[in-house]
Amino acid sequence: MRPRLALVPGEPAGVGPELCIRAMHRLHDADIVVFGDRDALSQAADRIGLPVSFADAGAVVAAPGTIRIIDIPNAAPATPGTPDPRNAAAVISALEGAAAACIAGTFDGLVTGPVHKASINAGGIAYTGTTGLLARHAGREVVMMLANDIVRVALATIHLPLREVADAITPAGLERTLRITHAALREDFGIAAPVIAVLGLNPHAGEAGHLGREEIEVIEPVLERLRGEGMALNGPLPADTAFLPAKLEGFDAVLAMYHDQGLPVLKYSGFERAVNLTLGLPYPRVAVDHGTALDLAGKGTADPSSLLAAIDTCTQLARQRQGAHRGITP
Amino acid sequence: MRPRLALVPGEPAGVGPELCIRAMHRLHDADIVVFGDRDALSQAADRIGLPVSFADAGAVVAAPGTIRIIDIPNAAPATPGTPDPRNAAAVISALEGAAAACIAGTFDGLVTGPVHKASINAGGIAYTGTTGLLARHAGREVVMMLANDIVRVALATIHLPLREVADAITPAGLERTLRITHAALREDFGIAAPVIAVLGLNPHAGEAGHLGREEIEVIEPVLERLRGEGMALNGPLPADTAFLPAKLEGFDAVLAMYHDQGLPVLKYSGFERAVNLTLGLPYPRVAVDHGTALDLAGKGTADPSSLLAAIDTCTQLARQRQGAHRGITP
Repeated sequence: MRPRLALVPGEPAGVGPELCIRAMHRLHDADIVVFGDRDALSQAADRIGLPVSFADAGAVVAAPGTIRIIDIPNAAPATPGTPDPRNAAAVISALEGAAAACIAGTFDGLVTGPVHKASINAGGIAYTGTTGLLARHAGREVVMMLANDIVRVALATIHLPLREVADAITPAGLERTLRITHAALREDFGIAAPVIAVLGLNPHAGEAGHLGREEIEVIEPVLERLRGEGMALNGPLPADTAFLPAKLEGFDAVLAMYHDQGLPVLKYSGFERAVNLTLGLPYPRVAVDHGTALDLAGKGTADPSSLLAAIDTCTQLARQRQGAHRGITP
Repeated sequence: MRPRLALVPGEPAGVGPELCIRAMHRLHDADIVVFGDRDALSQAADRIGLPVSFADAGAVVAAPGTIRIIDIPNAAPATPGTPDPRNAAAVISALEGAAAACIAGTFDGLVTGPVHKASINAGGIAYTGTTGLLARHAGREVVMMLANDIVRVALATIHLPLREVADAITPAGLERTLRITHAALREDFGIAAPVIAVLGLNPHAGEAGHLGREEIEVIEPVLERLRGEGMALNGPLPADTAFLPAKLEGFDAVLAMYHDQGLPVLKYSGFERAVNLTLGLPYPRVAVDHGTALDLAGKGTADPSSLLAAIDTCTQLARQRQGAHRGITP
């Protein structure tokens, strides 16, 4: 059965709407319904010279160029490049509505475009990122994973000042992160016995305690415990050499202890096709790995590769879950 | 004039000696003299089936396979794979002797192989790394830079536990690091107006203070001051996107705030040809970017690419300094 995906364009003044237009002019192996403002999408389409028509969310057939839509009207017109905080509520409603529909089982996965953090907050809504919003909405602990064709990087901590990272790596948190990541690799990616490379916190993974003791006191005991349950966990590994291409071939994912340890290689090795996944939700969620790109909005030059990769990835994950429900590997 | 380089093989039980043998069977654009144990080199050569002969350090002609040597005898025979702490003094003597000869002007640059930290310390000599040893020997502040064909990465801090990094980034230290790096790019690399990308300390370079204030309070003021002197400094930049290939093309070097922020992309993008430079010494110094590889020692399979790249790079840097002395660009 073709997966049904909910697609949220995100900030109406950014590149999200026009990337959705480009995506909806293509064929996909999923039935996609857009949660967003119909007029804003229509205007974005006209602006880049790719007109669209609209259909109901329940329409059975939608050819490329026809968008199935659940209309969530903005409060103010969208001006490319200039986010309007009056539209914050519509952006958040679209995300929460789509998430609720995924939890209800109406959709099999959620794909999201970029949101403008400052504009949401200026609109009076406390917001630190879509990953956190969806986690709270679902009442789940989650893990952020960035992935491209080369490597999947899960993060033990995300948007923390560097000086807070060491204390934020706790046995309980690390164990939870590894359990969520391991389960997602099995259930969403269909990898029967995933191998996870776990990076050390310190340079050279602490060099046997000479460069920090968190590997010995926090990381290794957690790995030992989970290995006892049968998980294949490599590490703690020195971050500088764990990403060597020959080593990456042996890992299904790399767990980095913090943002700037894990993401530079991911973005260097293939930024365009990189996507941002939220592991641990009741449904697959995949986002673009870029921001609102306000400077490009409305010009028609923004590259849809990451959104297309997000749709592809979400389709695969949704299909994997469908297969798992039926007890088969797709 | 052909540069004269001093070459120190490093740990006699590691791959250093056999890599030197392979290197000395090739032609180079420099006259190379090895500071090390003659017998250990001879045995390493026989072991990998590439016999060598030896000549005095002052010999005018040395064909490939002939090694000009300053013999620094080990205290004990070298057994591949098993460092002997009794040889620590010889390893350190070779490094210090070669460094002294560079300072005296007898040599134009220093190339070093891998040293085994634990074995030197077990031999009763306090040692945390060759970079630090050479800095103290010369009485200079230095900067460690790792480089390959893709990117040059200088480090503001090196072998520190992660929890100590934030406090170690000081205005004075950062200014000194940037001055040394900038001067080396001009004088050693011959780049008239170097462009340096300076990474932030925190994820997203602190996101305007939301994810840490060191960018605002420490890094930006230093950059502003040095820009006032005419330095081209980009940043503070988010580390995850600063290494995008299109961006790297615009930078002559990237200054990372710490080890695991800067080195994963460098090693991913070209480990084999990567070298380790010490900037700020009175002479160019280039080291291999790998360890003693005890598991490979004596097998003849170790890859000499990094040592060959180190010799090439040191030759170019020495030639650049010669040209600068004569007021020409080579």
